[in-house]
Amino acid sequence: MKAEIIAIGTELITGQALDTNSAWLSQRLGEIGIPVGWHTTVADDLHDNIAAFRVAAERAAVVLATGGLGPTQDDLTREALARLAGVELVLHAESLAHIQEMFAQRNRPMPERNRVQALFPAGAEPIPNRCGTAPGIWLRVGSCHIAALPGVPSEMMVMFDEQIKPRLLQLGLAGGVRLQRKLNCFGSGESHIEEKLLDLTRRGHVPEVGITVSDATISLRIIAQAPSRAEALAQIEPVERTIRDRLGDLVFGVEDEDLHDVVVRLLREQGKTLATAESVTTGQVAERIGRVPGASECFLGGIVAYSNAAKQALLGVPAELLAAHGAVSGPVAEAMAVGCRARFGSDLAVSTTGIAGPGGATPTKPVGLVWVGLAWEGGVSSQSFSWTGTRGEIQNRTAKLALNRVRLHLLRPPGAAHAT
Amino acid sequence: MKAEIIAIGTELITGQALDTNSAWLSQRLGEIGIPVGWHTTVADDLHDNIAAFRVAAERAAVVLATGGLGPTQDDLTREALARLAGVELVLHAESLAHIQEMFAQRNRPMPERNRVQALFPAGAEPIPNRCGTAPGIWLRVGSCHIAALPGVPSEMMVMFDEQIKPRLLQLGLAGGVRLQRKLNCFGSGESHIEEKLLDLTRRGHVPEVGITVSDATISLRIIAQAPSRAEALAQIEPVERTIRDRLGDLVFGVEDEDLHDVVVRLLREQGKTLATAESVTTGQVAERIGRVPGASECFLGGIVAYSNAAKQALLGVPAELLAAHGAVSGPVAEAMAVGCRARFGSDLAVSTTGIAGPGGATPTKPVGLVWVGLAWEGGVSSQSFSWTGTRGEIQNRTAKLALNRVRLHLLRPPGAAHAT
Repeated sequence: MKAEIIAIGTELITGQALDTNSAWLSQRLGEIGIPVGWHTTVADDLHDNIAAFRVAAERAAVVLATGGLGPTQDDLTREALARLAGVELVLHAESLAHIQEMFAQRNRPMPERNRVQALFPAGAEPIPNRCGTAPGIWLRVGSCHIAALPGVPSEMMVMFDEQIKPRLLQLGLAGGVRLQRKLNCFGSGESHIEEKLLDLTRRGHVPEVGITVSDATISLRIIAQAPSRAEALAQIEPVERTIRDRLGDLVFGVEDEDLHDVVVRLLREQGKTLATAESVTTGQVAERIGRVPGASECFLGGIVAYSNAAKQALLGVPAELLAAHGAVSGPVAEAMAVGCRARFGSDLAVSTTGIAGPGGATPTKPVGLVWVGLAWEGGVSSQSFSWTGTRGEIQNRTAKLALNRVRLHLLRPPGAAHAT
Repeated sequence: MKAEIIAIGTELITGQALDTNSAWLSQRLGEIGIPVGWHTTVADDLHDNIAAFRVAAERAAVVLATGGLGPTQDDLTREALARLAGVELVLHAESLAHIQEMFAQRNRPMPERNRVQALFPAGAEPIPNRCGTAPGIWLRVGSCHIAALPGVPSEMMVMFDEQIKPRLLQLGLAGGVRLQRKLNCFGSGESHIEEKLLDLTRRGHVPEVGITVSDATISLRIIAQAPSRAEALAQIEPVERTIRDRLGDLVFGVEDEDLHDVVVRLLREQGKTLATAESVTTGQVAERIGRVPGASECFLGGIVAYSNAAKQALLGVPAELLAAHGAVSGPVAEAMAVGCRARFGSDLAVSTTGIAGPGGATPTKPVGLVWVGLAWEGGVSSQSFSWTGTRGEIQNRTAKLALNRVRLHLLRPPGAAHAT
């Protein structure tokens, strides 16, 4: 028993607008235990609309469509559904009165074209729209329940929550609860992480465990489908514990929590302050920290030392060190961190230096080579990494590498743990 | 003759992630005159994948699929295409060597699981991926041409432009031309801009002119459909001239050009250098500039002075000025810019200070109030703005405001133009 979501609109199929309705509806259906099997997008084209509804009505138990209910000539959902069901369009007096009233409230005459919005396939049930002029349509074709809603997200959302969801629950189509737990990891590759979890990520495992990667952040999704919330949680919790046991510190957060959120949380919990000294990331480490509300309590600021002159003048990196090792080196990363910590008087300072490309590579230092330094009271360390990818990817991933270095330091204070 | 785009991924069908690939591919296909008829999204499910490919191969002349080419067990596109074509998966030695080399470059052993990325349906053509480990697949099933590309947007985009587009052009599938010109504007609201263009943005105007807004950047899209590129350009060019005449300096760039791109271009053209002094934007102005290849030629660096102590110690803002006006004020924004310019020895320095929220507001200084300062040889100025929006929106928009201030200064050198 799966649902299908159909998005109708030439602006969507040509790529001029992004369909956000289908993802939203999928989430809402998932929450009431109705899995979605297909998203389909078609243009404002009568033939394509009818064909899409026909395919959907055959394979899905529920079809939710958005778009094509406006008053203009390219709004064809009403007609497509009438043709699909093999019935005429008939006028619904109550809907017409509602539309006329919406115009009256704005002191405008109702354009004649809006009259079509009160037409419905014979036998269909009008779905009131209290936020706009386009009523929705609820009808059954064969064994499939079809709901057509406006494409305007704010109208569609209210109508789904108030009108469609109760109907789906009443039909008994909602089968239990679908819950998801997302664990975010950093510090290892996708394949290496999956190698530790092969028994969990295999097809057919209950609950399902999926892996996605975005700019070196690996996310694990544990998805449980069960008759009740308690039973879904009972599926998820032991699997989450197993994953955390196996991955340890690689797991840095849950759901939408990002590395900078964790760093700010740990700093605040421990009453510590941080400053940043950035070259290759040109301010991104600071910018990410600054996204977190309350960052001002623990983040003192940073220096973007892009030129060697700035590294010397503002961070006190010795000219000899730059000459001997080059700006992209462990000693310079460490000197940047130490100099930054002294200037800001912070507990910790983290630094980045590297080659983001496309230019700047040397025979011994390829594009993608980066160093991250960390200075704390009584110590300093550095580590290097070689990324592949675009300039932007190298910068994003290095900013995360630096934040992760701070996170690991805060989790395992030096002395208590191994280096790097 | 239409194309179909299939997006594969459980994270998409459950609504946890938004599919942006399909819209991007639709635009690119439209540009070479291949209309898209269907977007289909399915989960990482072998049966659903095969069924989706089967339906698509019957109704479309070209099918582009994204996702499901990774090394993990839920990556099933290879297998689905082999089943669809009724052939075995065979190892492609060259692709395997490329994947092994990608790992070698990072000094890491290739996990055994990545070997599957070198498997292809017998008879299919591997599409090289120079940005990642997942090669694409090009094969013909019946009369339909199918291309499978990775789901990672940056890899997918390069592979489409370099590998798939030339193949489609060679097949003679491209018919007619759909051209788009995008003009990016900053410095005025969407309604104010549209008021100046009402005759162009009305429905049915040829060429079509659309307006979209994203974080205070207003984009105007001029879209022409014509038998040839020359005829499409002939539609676009006079409309572009009209828009530029009416909007003047509000238009800062075309296509994907962002404010930081323009700032770096103008600085390099004029042989000038820039440094940044940021509070409310916590490094974002520097980070945006650093995204541009070659920024190191004109960008010396920056100081993120989040705390008042850092504003004094690192930028030389007098304590009395902070006490008299508060950190969020014109005088402090100007002192930050002047101090920054002196420390970096740059031609220009731009500063930001403000209240991003959610905390930090006072009775006279609400969340969203920001000041931007600019210092140049012989002068300094500041301007304020009041944004509504989230913390992130206020920070993004203020970073753009600062960049726009630098842009306008470079376009109209002081003395030659009016102030702010």
